[in-house]
Order: sequence, then C-alpha cells, then structure tokens
Amino acid sequence: MIKGKTFIISGPSGVGKSTVLNALLREYPDLYFSVSATTRAPRENELDGVHYHFIAPEDFHKMIEEEAFLEYAEYVGNFYGTPKKYVDAAMDEGRDVILDIEIQGAQQVCAKRPETVRIFIAPPSWSELERRLTERGTDDADKVQKRLLRAKVELKMADAYDYFVINDTVDSAVEQLKAILLAEHCKSPQRIAKLLVE
Amino acid sequence: MIKGKTFIISGPSGVGKSTVLNALLREYPDLYFSVSATTRAPRENELDGVHYHFIAPEDFHKMIEEEAFLEYAEYVGNFYGTPKKYVDAAMDEGRDVILDIEIQGAQQVCAKRPETVRIFIAPPSWSELERRLTERGTDDADKVQKRLLRAKVELKMADAYDYFVINDTVDSAVEQLKAILLAEHCKSPQRIAKLLVE
Repeated sequence: MIKGKTFIISGPSGVGKSTVLNALLREYPDLYFSVSATTRAPRENELDGVHYHFIAPEDFHKMIEEEAFLEYAEYVGNFYGTPKKYVDAAMDEGRDVILDIEIQGAQQVCAKRPETVRIFIAPPSWSELERRLTERGTDDADKVQKRLLRAKVELKMADAYDYFVINDTVDSAVEQLKAILLAEHCKSPQRIAKLLVE
Repeated sequence: MIKGKTFIISGPSGVGKSTVLNALLREYPDLYFSVSATTRAPRENELDGVHYHFIAPEDFHKMIEEEAFLEYAEYVGNFYGTPKKYVDAAMDEGRDVILDIEIQGAQQVCAKRPETVRIFIAPPSWSELERRLTERGTDDADKVQKRLLRAKVELKMADAYDYFVINDTVDSAVEQLKAILLAEHCKSPQRIAKLLVE
C-alpha cells in the first residue's frame, strides 16, 4: 500500500476555497479532510468529530505537551489545532489528506514535515476578489477593504508555497487541484519499486 | 506572456511512448515536439524538418562547437542532437516543449538546464512489457529478452527522474501526463506576479 500525502490548502477570505474543496471532495470522496480540535464550546448544530473535535482546555494543553498537534494557535481566547493522529491514520490507509489552514499553521506543519505539499488558492484579480467579498454581503464596505488588504499581505507571505491555483472558475480550480494531486503521486519512486525488485 | 516549459519524456522500447505522445499531442496541439538534427541520410518518405533536421557532418560539428545543442550523441557512425534554437523559440512563444530522448541525453540537458522536468514512462509490469514487445512482432524471442534486460537497466538509471508515469492504458498515461504539465504550470510564481505588483 502506498501511503497518502498531505496537502495544505490556504487562500484569502472570499477566494472561494470552501466551494472548491467541496467540489473536489465530491469527485474524490476518499480524501480525508482534517477536522481541527478546539477548546471553544460547540455552537448550535455543530457536531463533535464533524465540524471540530471539541476538547477541554486541559486536554488541549496536554496534547501540546505530547506534541500531538501538527500545528496549533490561539484565537480570541480559544485554541485550535490539527491533531496528528487522524492525519496519520488516513495516510496509513493510503488516503490523501487535505489541511485547510492558513499560512502560519502551514509554516508549523512544514517545519515538522517538509514533504507536505502547500497549495495557495489565489483570485484571478484583486477586483474580482473585491467583487466576491462584496457580493456575499456579510461585510460592509470598510470590512471588505480590510479583508482585501489582508489578502494582499497573505499572498506576499505565500511565496514559498509549492503551487498556486487561480480560482477563476470552480471547474478550473478543481481541475488544477486534481492535476496537482495526481502529479504529486507520479513523483513517488514507490510507484516503480515493484519493477525495481524484479 | 509566461514562457513554456521543457519536459523530457523517456521510456523503454515497447512501453508505448509514441502512442501516448501522439494522443497527448492530439489533445494539446500547441505542444512543440522537438525535432532532432542528424547527420544520417534521409530515408524514403522522411521529410527535412518533420522527421529530422538533416544536416551535413561539418555543420553538425560546427554546431557542437557553438554549443548549439541541448544534447547530442553518436550512434552507429551518425550524429543525433537536439538543437537549442527551436526549443527556445517555442518556449518564448509560451509553448511547452516535449523532448523524446533517452536517459543519457536527459542527463546532458539537465546539466545545462536543471529546471527541465524529467518524466519516465514505465510499464505496469515486466510481464506486460514482454507481452507488448512480443505482440508487436518486430523482434524474435532473443531480441525481446535483450530489450527487456535493457529496460530493467534503464529503469534503475531513471531514479533521478521527477515523475513516473505508469502506462497501464493509453488514457490513463495521457491523464497522468496532462496532470504533470498542468501541475508544473501551477508551480510558477509568475502566475501570481500580476497580483503582487498591484
């Protein structure tokens, strides 16, 4: 059995990452989308093990000490992290793993596991990102400008990413992601290991 | 305009490389398949600039001195080589270039241009390669065994290749090649250069 690979997917707010990832998952149901652990309380309709692994702060801190996270961070008083165990179990089953995390988290993961593949989803233009942020209607004009500025800073920080997927249309972005997953598997010399021993 | 990339495609005799490359070219007619230069005389039906660039030995040697080849080799008294100029012209037009050359030639190209992407086309198994070599009927049993042995040696030399495409079916091999071409373009930070200057 060839082990699965881990792919980090990052991208600015409004770029359409969730839509693209959901479309990818429909085509590749065998992908494992990592579920984060958090110390915050579940909201209504949030299910443990589906939306998050909800755990007590003392357990989270114990996991930090045991180095049980690929990455973690504190945000507005709560902790969020990627538990190693589910990622490793999926990879051992030969499944590819998707980590939907941002750039600082990606840096932590790659420091531990440099073989992790980093993909940044970028908008086709800033005006298009502005349009998408405005049209979803969740933010006022001031907040949209702040998100746009933050997206520009994030893109500058993403220069070490392995791949840049331009989300022009969902279909095109999914095609790029599928190509990256397949090409990364073609890299593995394990593919020809069977031929080398004969 | 984003420059094209050069892809070396190697693989043992009988693996089905020509069939796969022809199918790829039908889907991506904009690819430039590099045409080799040779000092040997054209055979009947061979066209200059299509099958080979037929050139005189003295011109070939002048081109070697001028470093006008990406790679060259002597085979049974004739010289064969990949002229730089057509490759560079195609890349400058934004076209991807396919070099159908073997491992020693690939080593020469990568010594000059380490950014060249190397793809090795492998059979799904040695018994399947033997079957394909036998069924095409051009070689007797002894010659088939020699080709098989040579293929095993080539695969061992190909461990530094970037990608391994398993030619199980033509469709699957073409899908892998298309994924590699698209993924390699997603690597280019030039894709987001426009966003970084705004």
